[in-house]
Amino acid sequence: MSNWTEEHNALKRSFKFQDFSEAFGFLTRVAIEAEKAQHHPEIHNVYNQVSISLSTHDAGNTVTDKDRNLAAAIDKLL
Amino acid sequence: MSNWTEEHNALKRSFKFQDFSEAFGFLTRVAIEAEKAQHHPEIHNVYNQVSISLSTHDAGNTVTDKDRNLAAAIDKLL
Amino acid sequence: MSNWTEEHNALKRSFKFQDFSEAFGFLTRVAIEAEKAQHHPEIHNVYNQVSISLSTHDAGNTVTDKDRNLAAAIDKLL
Amino acid sequence: MSNWTEEHNALKRSFKFQDFSEAFGFLTRVAIEAEKAQHHPEIHNVYNQVSISLSTHDAGNTVTDKDRNLAAAIDKLL
Repeated sequence: MSNWTEEHNALKRSFKFQDFSEAFGFLTRVAIEAEKAQHHPEIHNVYNQVSISLSTHDAGNTVTDKDRNLAAAIDKLL
Repeated sequence: MSNWTEEHNALKRSFKFQDFSEAFGFLTRVAIEAEKAQHHPEIHNVYNQVSISLSTHDAGNTVTDKDRNLAAAIDKLL
Repeated sequence: MSNWTEEHNALKRSFKFQDFSEAFGFLTRVAIEAEKAQHHPEIHNVYNQVSISLSTHDAGNTVTDKDRNLAAAIDKLL
Repeated sequence: MSNWTEEHNALKRSFKFQDFSEAFGFLTRVAIEAEKAQHHPEIHNVYNQVSISLSTHDAGNTVTDKDRNLAAAIDKLL
């Protein structure tokens, strides 16, 4: 999981796109993956920048396989 | 406008993506372009396939620069 | 399934929204439901109008419970 | 602009939806409005919660009419 860093019990990754349209097209696909996994990230977006943070609330806000699997699914979108 | 064909007074182009997610990410960006242009295409989607048809109702359903411009904006998304 | 009609071995329903934005917000949610169900409708959109057609290819293009379940999930979005 | 509060030179509003799908359908429409206005908010989302923050970078990160207009456009989506 080299593209993600684990800090404060969450997997985090930042993404930079060409413009807002490309960023939001990506976010739409992230939304689809999140609902398929029934696991929802924390999403932050400003223009062409997206930050995603993954942790598992039901496991006391730690990083679990749910987070690692969703991170891997998100990486595949790129 | 080599990627689009003009038939029955409309500009048409078909697109094939890897899967539904990629197709819908593209459609989200088409939606944004359409609203920016205040000009809306006819969209058809099944799984990884998208067809777009452009014509100008206000001009008696003919192909106008509104259609050519939106087609060019859509091509830039690819 | 009163809102959907079965014709030519497909469940069909048409929707009319206030404008394109409302129609596309709905389509985004349909896309999420479709991917969750791993069952993808035929979608047609022009401005504020959306038509959805559901049939099951793997079952010889007939209407199955996969279609009825996705139709019910789509109805819940309204 | 009663639904938005101005703090730290930004207009802010939080939204709570029934679920993630409803929240993301809303965000898609916000994205369309943002691109139409060529003015992009700071967006934060976790599951059914959305926070939006508006300020104008070109005006030294203060609140301008660009922010007030986009806030009004977002309110109309609800």
